[in-house]
Amino acid sequence: MKRSFIEVGSESHFPIQNLPYGVFRPRSGGTPRIGVAIGDFVLDLAVVDDAGHFSGTAVAGKGVFHQSSLNAFMALGRTIWRDVRAQIQHLLSEDEPTLRDITTLRNAALLHQSDVELLLPVQIGDYTDFYASKEHATNVGIMFRGKENALMPNWTHLPVGYHGRASSIVLSGTDVRRPQGQMKPADATAPLFGPCRQLDFELEMGWLIGPGNKLGQPISVEHAEEHIFGLVLVNDWSARDIQAWEYQPLGPFLAKNFTTSMSPWVIPLEALEPFRTDGPKQDPEPLPYLRMPGAGTFDIHLEVYLQGEGMEMAQRISASNFRYLYWSMAQQIAHHTVGGCNLRPGDLLASGTISGSEKETRGSLMELAWRGAEPLHLENGEQRVWLEDGDQVTMTGWCQGEGYRIGFGEVTGRVLPAFE
Amino acid sequence: MKRSFIEVGSESHFPIQNLPYGVFRPRSGGTPRIGVAIGDFVLDLAVVDDAGHFSGTAVAGKGVFHQSSLNAFMALGRTIWRDVRAQIQHLLSEDEPTLRDITTLRNAALLHQSDVELLLPVQIGDYTDFYASKEHATNVGIMFRGKENALMPNWTHLPVGYHGRASSIVLSGTDVRRPQGQMKPADATAPLFGPCRQLDFELEMGWLIGPGNKLGQPISVEHAEEHIFGLVLVNDWSARDIQAWEYQPLGPFLAKNFTTSMSPWVIPLEALEPFRTDGPKQDPEPLPYLRMPGAGTFDIHLEVYLQGEGMEMAQRISASNFRYLYWSMAQQIAHHTVGGCNLRPGDLLASGTISGSEKETRGSLMELAWRGAEPLHLENGEQRVWLEDGDQVTMTGWCQGEGYRIGFGEVTGRVLPAFE
Repeated sequence: MKRSFIEVGSESHFPIQNLPYGVFRPRSGGTPRIGVAIGDFVLDLAVVDDAGHFSGTAVAGKGVFHQSSLNAFMALGRTIWRDVRAQIQHLLSEDEPTLRDITTLRNAALLHQSDVELLLPVQIGDYTDFYASKEHATNVGIMFRGKENALMPNWTHLPVGYHGRASSIVLSGTDVRRPQGQMKPADATAPLFGPCRQLDFELEMGWLIGPGNKLGQPISVEHAEEHIFGLVLVNDWSARDIQAWEYQPLGPFLAKNFTTSMSPWVIPLEALEPFRTDGPKQDPEPLPYLRMPGAGTFDIHLEVYLQGEGMEMAQRISASNFRYLYWSMAQQIAHHTVGGCNLRPGDLLASGTISGSEKETRGSLMELAWRGAEPLHLENGEQRVWLEDGDQVTMTGWCQGEGYRIGFGEVTGRVLPAFE
Repeated sequence: MKRSFIEVGSESHFPIQNLPYGVFRPRSGGTPRIGVAIGDFVLDLAVVDDAGHFSGTAVAGKGVFHQSSLNAFMALGRTIWRDVRAQIQHLLSEDEPTLRDITTLRNAALLHQSDVELLLPVQIGDYTDFYASKEHATNVGIMFRGKENALMPNWTHLPVGYHGRASSIVLSGTDVRRPQGQMKPADATAPLFGPCRQLDFELEMGWLIGPGNKLGQPISVEHAEEHIFGLVLVNDWSARDIQAWEYQPLGPFLAKNFTTSMSPWVIPLEALEPFRTDGPKQDPEPLPYLRMPGAGTFDIHLEVYLQGEGMEMAQRISASNFRYLYWSMAQQIAHHTVGGCNLRPGDLLASGTISGSEKETRGSLMELAWRGAEPLHLENGEQRVWLEDGDQVTMTGWCQGEGYRIGFGEVTGRVLPAFE
């Protein structure tokens, strides 16, 4: 197995097989730049480039790593990503002396993660949220519209999605203000205004677009993965009472746009290849433009942890898997662009809540507590039906290799009381 | 009445009372910069600034007019916009010699509109589309869901809106490719894929956000207009057959994101003040956060013209008015931010289709031809139920003053056949 000269434990999220990209600023000062996580360290790619160690690649001296977002690098496309990744893997491998033995370079290029501040890694132009888990769509459908109308007739024919809000996407660790808004409780004759009473999380994964397409020129399902730069964890915070009142007929708006949280490290699609697998069987067979050749998803374990103010430790409340999703990333991209809509470097597409068929695999509190009917019992004796002020929600994910993990780090956020 | 030394006809859209901002590139070469329309000319604000004629204002020498978008200027806020506008109006007035009589400056700063290429005037971060015309929402509701469920119970309580697609917003004049997509005709047992058969336009107005707000800090309805930099015409092209099949439960997606067209000149809110008026009476009274002090809308005449390939001239097919909208811009901004969502400089908010109560005031072809039941008869003997390849749709708008017009120019686009 490939190893780095930097010691990386078997449960670390960031072995040499992973090498996720992020944007950071050294706490000692300096401008934002691009780095790669390795064990407990960050490799400063701007320093590596300045030292001439990308000389065999197309990025050498181009300044793409001296930037405050990954966008310029993401626009370059898969061939160049692959070259750069191979060179970074080479530089970090245990038998390569360049970084390992040249102390000045090593000290300049490798920073401990505690010595850097992570920043939002991309400038997101547009954010699209899908609804690609059949179990989640069915659960929500039952709760919002009853068993008869749970899954809309279109759901098994196309990956349902909608446009989200890019401006309110925040980095993991940012506190989340409970939104205020209009809602209409079942027993009320008129809507009322106040703090959301049904605050929820949604366990999602997101993927960031690389090159993208020109307006009017669709991306085929066969070529769709070439446009995926990498994946992140996403918590799509949701206000269910606001959603229930506002969502017809144009979809969720204020229920979703107050905050969306994203993890800081972008896991390259290439790092996930050993974990590629089939998704659920699709029945009916999709229309030709959505027919996917080969295995289209990845075996990524996902977990959600909740820690209330009165809890000493975070408690795991959900364990799901990316491969439960009915629609693949490639299908979602093909559908998104089939009418001509253009994707640009830095666009974020997210999966929608990822729920499986078992109760403990449900990816939202609404599903776990069945909209209040089955309160979630916590180990300290508390219950949860919806999120309370002070609750911290943390999501994590990883692929399990033999003796190593391709990890996604975490996306976390704590609920603040509503704005006065 | 205030006059410019530049001759401006009484039906010109761009008298000295208007002074809309745009971004242009001289056809003779040079980088994009910011200008103001006056009669048939464009005043190059970069040249005016370089010559020191903004010296009394906060923008002097800051380079905000040497940019390829209005965003930096828009972020500065209303006080500075007002100072700059007053100075431009002063420089262009008939009794002010600076520009009028100094030939070198005049020749450098004033370009004929035919000598410039207009560009998209803003970098749009997020685009939000509302649904603020009661007549339009009722008409669409009847056609999509029947008379019983036409207007959803939430509609009279909040300005319904949804997130649109920013990447596919194009400048007026850009051709519009007919989208392909999934649809399910009433007589089909399964959905099919192909070119949209029910292509439509939507007559809308948009407003561009100036300063905006921080995440978590709502904008009150009283202060909302301070965040409106100016207004434009918007054609929100729509694929009705794709929309009918996809829109439940998360709203329109591919039906709307293939193209949205925008007019090039941004009319300052201040230019519209003489035309401020009351909107429709709101019943029931909105919740306090949506209660608007004073008149909240403007008397803006709007027209839609259609020219098919076989027509010698464009024919007017709709005449509507901005003041028909039930929800005001300020109410839409207050609602958008009340849950904490942040608006950023350059964000575009649009009204949704603007229809009035009379048939000829309907702002979409779907309403004009009542989803096929009442075909539109054109003067050359043709009919239209939906848009055909080669059709050119042009929208225009203006406020009628005494002897002058505050015009919006036009937004136009021609339908191209679907992508092969």
